[in-house]
Amino acid sequence: MKKIINSPDNVVADSLKGLELAHSDTLRIDHENKVVYARRGAVKGKVGLVSGGGSGHEPLHSGFVGPGMLDAACCGEVFTSPVPDQMMAATSEVDGGAGVLHIVKNYTGDVMNFEMAAEMANAETGVEVRSVVVNDDVAVQDSLYTAGRRGVGATVFVEKLAGAAAEAKASLDEVERIAKEVNDRSRSYGIALTSCTVPSAGKPTFDLGEDEIEVGIGIHGEPGRERRPLVTADELAAELVEPILADLDFSGEPVFAMLNGMGATPMIELYLAYGEVAKILEAKGIKVARCLVGNYITSLDMAGCSLTLTQGSEELLKLWDAPVNTTGLRWGC
Amino acid sequence: MKKIINSPDNVVADSLKGLELAHSDTLRIDHENKVVYARRGAVKGKVGLVSGGGSGHEPLHSGFVGPGMLDAACCGEVFTSPVPDQMMAATSEVDGGAGVLHIVKNYTGDVMNFEMAAEMANAETGVEVRSVVVNDDVAVQDSLYTAGRRGVGATVFVEKLAGAAAEAKASLDEVERIAKEVNDRSRSYGIALTSCTVPSAGKPTFDLGEDEIEVGIGIHGEPGRERRPLVTADELAAELVEPILADLDFSGEPVFAMLNGMGATPMIELYLAYGEVAKILEAKGIKVARCLVGNYITSLDMAGCSLTLTQGSEELLKLWDAPVNTTGLRWGC
Repeated sequence: MKKIINSPDNVVADSLKGLELAHSDTLRIDHENKVVYARRGAVKGKVGLVSGGGSGHEPLHSGFVGPGMLDAACCGEVFTSPVPDQMMAATSEVDGGAGVLHIVKNYTGDVMNFEMAAEMANAETGVEVRSVVVNDDVAVQDSLYTAGRRGVGATVFVEKLAGAAAEAKASLDEVERIAKEVNDRSRSYGIALTSCTVPSAGKPTFDLGEDEIEVGIGIHGEPGRERRPLVTADELAAELVEPILADLDFSGEPVFAMLNGMGATPMIELYLAYGEVAKILEAKGIKVARCLVGNYITSLDMAGCSLTLTQGSEELLKLWDAPVNTTGLRWGC
Repeated sequence: MKKIINSPDNVVADSLKGLELAHSDTLRIDHENKVVYARRGAVKGKVGLVSGGGSGHEPLHSGFVGPGMLDAACCGEVFTSPVPDQMMAATSEVDGGAGVLHIVKNYTGDVMNFEMAAEMANAETGVEVRSVVVNDDVAVQDSLYTAGRRGVGATVFVEKLAGAAAEAKASLDEVERIAKEVNDRSRSYGIALTSCTVPSAGKPTFDLGEDEIEVGIGIHGEPGRERRPLVTADELAAELVEPILADLDFSGEPVFAMLNGMGATPMIELYLAYGEVAKILEAKGIKVARCLVGNYITSLDMAGCSLTLTQGSEELLKLWDAPVNTTGLRWGC
């Protein structure tokens, strides 16, 4: 295993130290609880947005903390859910009197721990907590860590769009409605060219042949739908688009699209893949209103990419264009 | 070779198609000449900034085209200089009547071709062209593609800071002075954990043992200073910092720092590495005024990172903080 780390045991803690040293002007980090906060703290009258999950998917979630997106991100160990204490600390801390929304990727540990934290926070401080569970991955119905579909790329869109609604001082009901709507309108699918390597494991999570890809891959190296020979980018783009369009009708309003890198795939390939995806969408009469191309929800050092599509709407478009000021997404401010 | 491409021959052309489809609101692409332009076109009275070089280093240079940074980026084939015709086209196109500055990384082909283009553009249209050659890599004196030091990470800073000066309508003399000053005040050093793979070659450029790193690596996989056993992140940070501080005195004004990923190294490791670098700098009394952590000048799918330090100044700090609106760097607008 070749990684820039001091010890497999301290990867997350050490990385958070670097994050703080790099961004102390905009972020504040509670190292004991491994929670990343927006420097400005709780905003009175604003719904607080808390997300989190296992580390190793950066920039998700810590890179999406800041005005217009999350108020706090709870960082678990690599590919491991944070514990309820972390989420409770974050929930109390970001409460500005308007309630708190938890944005939870659909993995068994995360869902259970966020639920427990919501109950405990409510019991202790009276803060009203709602929760949205993101489950956009069409690849598999159940998987290694999941009952139901996995939460992947749509998480970025939920955090952005619900974050914009919260920033505009929408009520907890409204922010929750937006978050759920974004999830309901989103579908994702991913492919891997290589495995990731979890530091504590010290070796690749799975083996792929020299000319093999895994389609329908998860963000923890958990199995996808099947293995296939590596194909050209245009065929690969079709492999990404088809299961998504088979699952939901995207023929209405222009969509939001994200061509996301898994961590080790260079931008030259991601743009190339996006071009092939966009051509297919265009041929099917699907217009892209806004897009992201780059590394947004990764799987450590996995090579590969995923596609997320979200049905747009006039309301969601305004929320998309609203200013956001985080280390991972920044515009309009 | 596992890459998301259609054919090794069309990687750059296909990727530019995707770039255009993703960012047609802010970029315009001349596909024949493989030049990426800011959508707004030439700005009257503003010095035009043109850079470019071999592709495979994305986001450099195409990701730095836009208000506050470059007006045009000329894209060569992977790791291959663009030709004078591309640079000539770009130079004429971005000329707003105040002259054009070429920002050139110090590789023999790039320097020669940009020189030729400057002469030809001047002869044909009378545009005044100046040039700054970036040569910040302290690793080796001469190398495979270079007489003198290689141009690496400082290119990002030169493009940002000279770009801000040009945006503020500084004269060609001034913009040239800023660009040269930034280069003179910058030093870089890189390490590789793995090789990159050039699509047309189809196999890794070099082989590294399972526990080996190459220190002083270039951005094309050209040899560095030596191979060493993989060390922990804190020792590796010292390997990055030492040759830079040995080459230039950074004890004055707070510095600009960039901990740059080579393409395949995840953010969790890059922040971890930055934290170790920042600790060493602090212990030496060197304050960091501004920093970047992420993939800014890459080497395809190479794993590894580089450090760039630039001596700051009051003037450069203002230019740093000026708005920039590109796909690779964006703030304040």
